[in-house]
Order: sequence, then C-alpha cells, then structure tokens
Amino acid sequence: MKLLEERILKDGQIREGSILKVDAFLNHQLDIGLMQEIGKEFARIFADAGINKILTIEASGIAIASIAAQYFGNVPVVFAKKAKSKNLDGNLYTSVVHSYTYGKDFNVTLSQKFLGPQDNVLVIDDFLASGKAMKGLLDICGQAGCKVAGIGICIEKGFQNGGRELREQGYKVASLAIVDHFNEDDTLTFREQ
Amino acid sequence: MKLLEERILKDGQIREGSILKVDAFLNHQLDIGLMQEIGKEFARIFADAGINKILTIEASGIAIASIAAQYFGNVPVVFAKKAKSKNLDGNLYTSVVHSYTYGKDFNVTLSQKFLGPQDNVLVIDDFLASGKAMKGLLDICGQAGCKVAGIGICIEKGFQNGGRELREQGYKVASLAIVDHFNEDDTLTFREQ
Repeated sequence: MKLLEERILKDGQIREGSILKVDAFLNHQLDIGLMQEIGKEFARIFADAGINKILTIEASGIAIASIAAQYFGNVPVVFAKKAKSKNLDGNLYTSVVHSYTYGKDFNVTLSQKFLGPQDNVLVIDDFLASGKAMKGLLDICGQAGCKVAGIGICIEKGFQNGGRELREQGYKVASLAIVDHFNEDDTLTFREQ
Repeated sequence: MKLLEERILKDGQIREGSILKVDAFLNHQLDIGLMQEIGKEFARIFADAGINKILTIEASGIAIASIAAQYFGNVPVVFAKKAKSKNLDGNLYTSVVHSYTYGKDFNVTLSQKFLGPQDNVLVIDDFLASGKAMKGLLDICGQAGCKVAGIGICIEKGFQNGGRELREQGYKVASLAIVDHFNEDDTLTFREQ
C-alpha cells in the first residue's frame, strides 16, 4: 500500500535493533484518515471472505480494527486483553505471549462469550515480526473453534519469521507494507507486492 | 443519549459493588455502529469548541476516540499509555493513577511530541466514576500546556464524585449516560439530562 509506505518513509523513525517507530501516526498518535485508507484496503483484500467479526489485541490494534470494521458493514470488533482485570469475569480463553516491546511474558485473555464456532474472523494488528502476539490470538481462535478468514497487518518485518511461518501454515496474511531490510544508511527497503 | 441508555439496559450487566459491565458493546466487544452514534453526539455537543486533537487512555478509550475523531474532521487522536514500554523513548509526560479495576497504581505516560500549547483538546473515555484516570489525563494536559475544550464520557457513575468535582473545577463534562442509582432490584436509574 503506497500511502502507508510513503508515510513510513516520511514519519517513521529507525532505532537500533531493527526497531521502527511509527508512533507519530499508527500506535500512539493516530492519523484517522490514514486508518480509513488502511481499513478500505483490508476490506478490498478480504471483500469475498464473509468476515463477520474482527479480532485484535490491545492497545495498538484497537483503533485500526475499529476504523476498519466500518468498511466490513460495521461487524463487531473484539480485542484480547493483556492483563486479567477484576472485571473480566466469566470464562476466558487464555494464551501466553512473550512481548519483546515490554520485555516480559503476559497472558492474553478473551471472554468466551465473544468468540465461537459461528465466527469467521479477520485478525488485525499493527505489526507482525516474530509473530508471537499473532500466535497467541490464533491460539485463542483455535480454542474458540472459529474460522480464521485472514490476517491483516499494517507493517510486517519481512526479515523476521512470523509472516513466512503463518503463510506456510496456510493463513491468508495481508501485510500492507513489508519491510525487507533496514539499510545501513537509515533507509528502508520495502518488498514489492 | 437515549440510544446508549437503552443499550445499557438491554446488554449491560450489574455486578456487586456498583460495577456495570458493558463489555458486550463498549469495552471488550465493540459495537461500531453504536460508537459512530456516540461520536456524532460528541461532535454535536462540542461543535463550536474548535477541537484540534482528541486525547484518551488505553485501552477502552481508543476505539471510542478514534471513531469519534471522524466527526471532528479526522483530528489526530493520541492515547496515554499505562505502562512504560521499551519503545516509548524521548521525553514523556507522566502521571500516577490508581485503577480500581486493576487494583493497583500505574504510570500514565504520553510522549511530549504529541501534545503541546497549540492543542485544543477533547478528552474522551468510556467511564467516569471517581475520576482518577481523568485527573491523570488532565494532569498531563497541564504539563503540556494545552487547552482542555471539553471532556466526553460515555457512562458516568453519578453517585461517585468524579463528574461533580470536574464540573466544579469549570470543565465542560458531557456524559452521554449518567447512572444515578443502582437499584436493589438490579435496575438502573439514569439522570434526566
């Protein structure tokens, strides 16, 4: 998606350790107009998939999933939580995920009420790198017995294994921008799609 | 807002300790159509306020703020974070908030890049009860030197002090549904507005 690639080049910041910061527009400050275009693109790619629910994970996925849902006929969004709160009662799906960003393992939980065999799900997140968070979400989908119609990612780090592994497992992964290299001169190389 | 009150009566669940669970439509599973109506209502109330940014806090505020921003001409949304991640570098505004939901104190942080004296802010959240989280956000607004044009809340617990205190301090607080009583027969009484 050219618009997203151009925005990454303009406002993204590269940090040591192949970290790409996009907090100016995607996951701290949010450019709502850009998110609308991202949502439209996911809707174009998954137009015939019969999606009836969007699943994401707090916090960065929520805005992207919610704006995108508007282009899927306002299907419900459900987001997995990263900590067990007192108010999350009832039966939960739970999976353990390691976060490199936060440097620790955490539980991902989702109320069983909100995902089940009747659901045909698009899983959305801002980043896909090693795929740890995504595997946690897919684990929850497995527990729920729902169908995973597709995976929609804004930015994939193509030099890590998450995307490749998911595609090898048969998932339809749509990454709107795939970074194949962080170059030594602080530039990025995107994969041609 | 009648639509929200009716939805609370239909799908909200009352728990011991004056807890109102709205996770079926507002803060775990998200009804995007309802959020669009909430966003339009905030835009109607604050139409003449000259808002150029919406501030909220992860995680429950993000969807509401992002959908609402569309009715304010796609102004940027910025959300405060509840934990310090490795990737949040640079200068941060920080405030300490006690969460009754999670049973602990936590730091609320916001990158200084994304809020400053040029901003005229609408602060949005899903709930207002004691007002602890909101006071943390307003503390950050004070550090940033921005103007707080208004506070938009989906559900206020009118029997707690947060809303009253904020109004006494001169803030324009718009709560779309105010619960004045949890009745003994498991019903709610909304404040006439």
